[in-house]
Amino acid sequence: MPASENVIRFIRDNQQSFLDDLHTLCAIPSISTLSDHKSHIDHAAEWLAIKLRAVGLENVEVMSTDGHPVVYGDTPPLEGQPTILIYGHYDVQPVDPIDEWNTPPFEPTLEEEYIYGRGVSDMKGQVVAILAALNSLKKINGGFPVTVKVILEGEEEIGSPHLGMFIQQHKELLACDFSVNADAGIMKPDLPSIVYGLRGLAYFELLIHGPQSDLHSGQFGGAVPNPAQVLCELIAGMHNINGQVTLPGFYDQVNDIDKGERAALANVPYDEQEFLATAANPPGLHGELGYTTIERIGARPTLEVNGLYSGFTGEGSKTVLPSKAMAKISMRLVPSQIPTDVAQKLRAYLQQNCPNSVIWELTELAHAPAAIMSRNSSAVISAASAMTTVFGVDPVFSREGGTVPVVGLLQDILGVDSVMMGFALPDAGIHGPNEKHHIPTFLRGIEAYAHFLVNVSTS
Amino acid sequence: MPASENVIRFIRDNQQSFLDDLHTLCAIPSISTLSDHKSHIDHAAEWLAIKLRAVGLENVEVMSTDGHPVVYGDTPPLEGQPTILIYGHYDVQPVDPIDEWNTPPFEPTLEEEYIYGRGVSDMKGQVVAILAALNSLKKINGGFPVTVKVILEGEEEIGSPHLGMFIQQHKELLACDFSVNADAGIMKPDLPSIVYGLRGLAYFELLIHGPQSDLHSGQFGGAVPNPAQVLCELIAGMHNINGQVTLPGFYDQVNDIDKGERAALANVPYDEQEFLATAANPPGLHGELGYTTIERIGARPTLEVNGLYSGFTGEGSKTVLPSKAMAKISMRLVPSQIPTDVAQKLRAYLQQNCPNSVIWELTELAHAPAAIMSRNSSAVISAASAMTTVFGVDPVFSREGGTVPVVGLLQDILGVDSVMMGFALPDAGIHGPNEKHHIPTFLRGIEAYAHFLVNVSTS
Repeated sequence: MPASENVIRFIRDNQQSFLDDLHTLCAIPSISTLSDHKSHIDHAAEWLAIKLRAVGLENVEVMSTDGHPVVYGDTPPLEGQPTILIYGHYDVQPVDPIDEWNTPPFEPTLEEEYIYGRGVSDMKGQVVAILAALNSLKKINGGFPVTVKVILEGEEEIGSPHLGMFIQQHKELLACDFSVNADAGIMKPDLPSIVYGLRGLAYFELLIHGPQSDLHSGQFGGAVPNPAQVLCELIAGMHNINGQVTLPGFYDQVNDIDKGERAALANVPYDEQEFLATAANPPGLHGELGYTTIERIGARPTLEVNGLYSGFTGEGSKTVLPSKAMAKISMRLVPSQIPTDVAQKLRAYLQQNCPNSVIWELTELAHAPAAIMSRNSSAVISAASAMTTVFGVDPVFSREGGTVPVVGLLQDILGVDSVMMGFALPDAGIHGPNEKHHIPTFLRGIEAYAHFLVNVSTS
Repeated sequence: MPASENVIRFIRDNQQSFLDDLHTLCAIPSISTLSDHKSHIDHAAEWLAIKLRAVGLENVEVMSTDGHPVVYGDTPPLEGQPTILIYGHYDVQPVDPIDEWNTPPFEPTLEEEYIYGRGVSDMKGQVVAILAALNSLKKINGGFPVTVKVILEGEEEIGSPHLGMFIQQHKELLACDFSVNADAGIMKPDLPSIVYGLRGLAYFELLIHGPQSDLHSGQFGGAVPNPAQVLCELIAGMHNINGQVTLPGFYDQVNDIDKGERAALANVPYDEQEFLATAANPPGLHGELGYTTIERIGARPTLEVNGLYSGFTGEGSKTVLPSKAMAKISMRLVPSQIPTDVAQKLRAYLQQNCPNSVIWELTELAHAPAAIMSRNSSAVISAASAMTTVFGVDPVFSREGGTVPVVGLLQDILGVDSVMMGFALPDAGIHGPNEKHHIPTFLRGIEAYAHFLVNVSTS
């Protein structure tokens, strides 16, 4: 049973106020990876604690961790109703390359059907939407249809390094029947979808050290090893010409996609021109031989270079032989690949392939396991039905290339599945410049969350 | 015949004043490659014009070019004496990595036998020394022993892009019997040396373009080409396992080192431990198979990565698939290799090897031909004799890995050889952090220049 007409009318009457909330939250530059943004992180957490109380949640608290805090709140327990743990995060990615933004990233800007700003889509738009749905249910019905617990973390964009410990330490507080993870998206404005598989992540910084300071490239070039060149050679060797990762044993734990799933993924709507447009129009596509784009992104592991730095990078020329070279390298993992295991494989590769004329140093920056969820729990059925009510079509089920560390942590520690229910769109430009959120989809999302919470209580 | 005892006494009595000049000139941050340092470039040029007049030169002028200006001055023509064109440059390299400097690069700092600062050794120390020698000769003798013309350029560190045109346009003004190029060094404080061969340079910026903006590496990684990875693969492919450059036809114009020269180079004193220390202690050495370190640096061409930049390079992790990747790549060339020709070979390599899923863009930033000079002209003999007088041992003749574009330009346009006569030491850290100049060698250099100018007039 969906939410009442009164609830939906309340949501529609208050759209401007929900947009105002989104604007306010997105104006806080809560970048988790940069330590000089700590005060903004705390500001965002405080703002959300106030908002949770305003929505009618109780026991609201900004709970400290060894990193950025978690904002918690819950509703009074309801006999006979499921307990749902709603998960979101309030931190955002850095904004560089800053000169590619058309509007200031922390001055949310409306333009036609979109709001532009860092974090609007990933995922402050989803956090504001689900709180708006809770608020509307409370305002109209005087209470909530199910028992709700909310956790909003501040370290998702750096791989949730302290969330596992937090969940361990608060197992009883967070006990629930299932989790709703709002850090998710749908395929198109008129095509809702539910993700049932997420890739894991292992993220590293690789440093190659050569001479102890930069040298003159004429005076020493040709005789002293060049760390930038060695780094390039090491990275080049991490893939073969078929686009496969060459780290020894990398695919040992990778199960091939079974026939049934392959057929299901083949049914996911895919149009190459549309995909290219969503991917900011690369000149072409490239990936592991023998797999489709949908499979490459959702169901196969990858190794990517996320950043490179060495020597002189300013304007013009500087004839320097760099003393060191750095790469940020990450792997997306499929279920049964273990982050610590692929880290060992990367170390083994470096051990085997790095010449003795330089020194390598590898630092793990983040890791999270992959996750696969059931597609036919009552929670998923309630979510699908809510989407059908709002969008007028049934959602598609898909596997996604991204990583949401909490999903694996909740499976491991609390033994509960997550329903991925969020309304970001693929062309939102999350993590890049000019991130945007589609306002009509944001507003539909609020209604879908309201229907879902009522559906679950009556299923 | 060397300079008189009175001249040498004057030089020794005025050491502090020459050091003060070095201090003042090195405090001007005349970085030629950074456009926001233009005012410092002009400041350095003006300061030198004043200094040239103070030394007794006439017709002193800051002459404009399409880039940074050239400072010119000369002495009255002397019947029956050679005309010497003294060359120097007043621009310096950028200072990054700035956090590796122990003292501010533009606050010259004395410590034990050294003065630290950007440009002290390359080559403001040499410019101040040769002007000090001229000053001392004029003060004691009331005039100069030979006809001297001085040009000090402001674009050497960016490859002297406008100096060829300047020499073309002022052929008559610059007419001379030979040039003394002070942008040079000696092997050790107690081992003077004269360079008779210099490598050429071809310097490029290579950009690889993928998607038009940075993407989420989970959402798109594995299906969209990664420009950072493609860049690494292209760079890795530019050398084979024997350390040879693989650009098609790269060695076509490279003559192998002949037996006689090979034997001469084998006589250049070389100690691996000493070389490693001078090269900022790399963990090992690496270069083209079949050649010694001395040959690799002086007599063989190279291809080096001078800089890398792509994606996220800040602290922590950002899961981005970069939209582009940049490398600064330079080649050091031996005589008969032509910069425009190797540029074509690099383009041909990229055409053949860059996948269609990305777009490459190559910009030439600087180029200069290599040069080989006579070892037994009267000018070289006068320089060698001056060094023997001051250092007590005969100088060694060597080929150097660096590039001094003006040497090739003066050969091509004016048909004159250059005598490389400067007093930088190999461990000066030029182009890197903590550049230093050895004060006793700086002071000996002044005396050597004075002896040389008198030697030449009486030879």
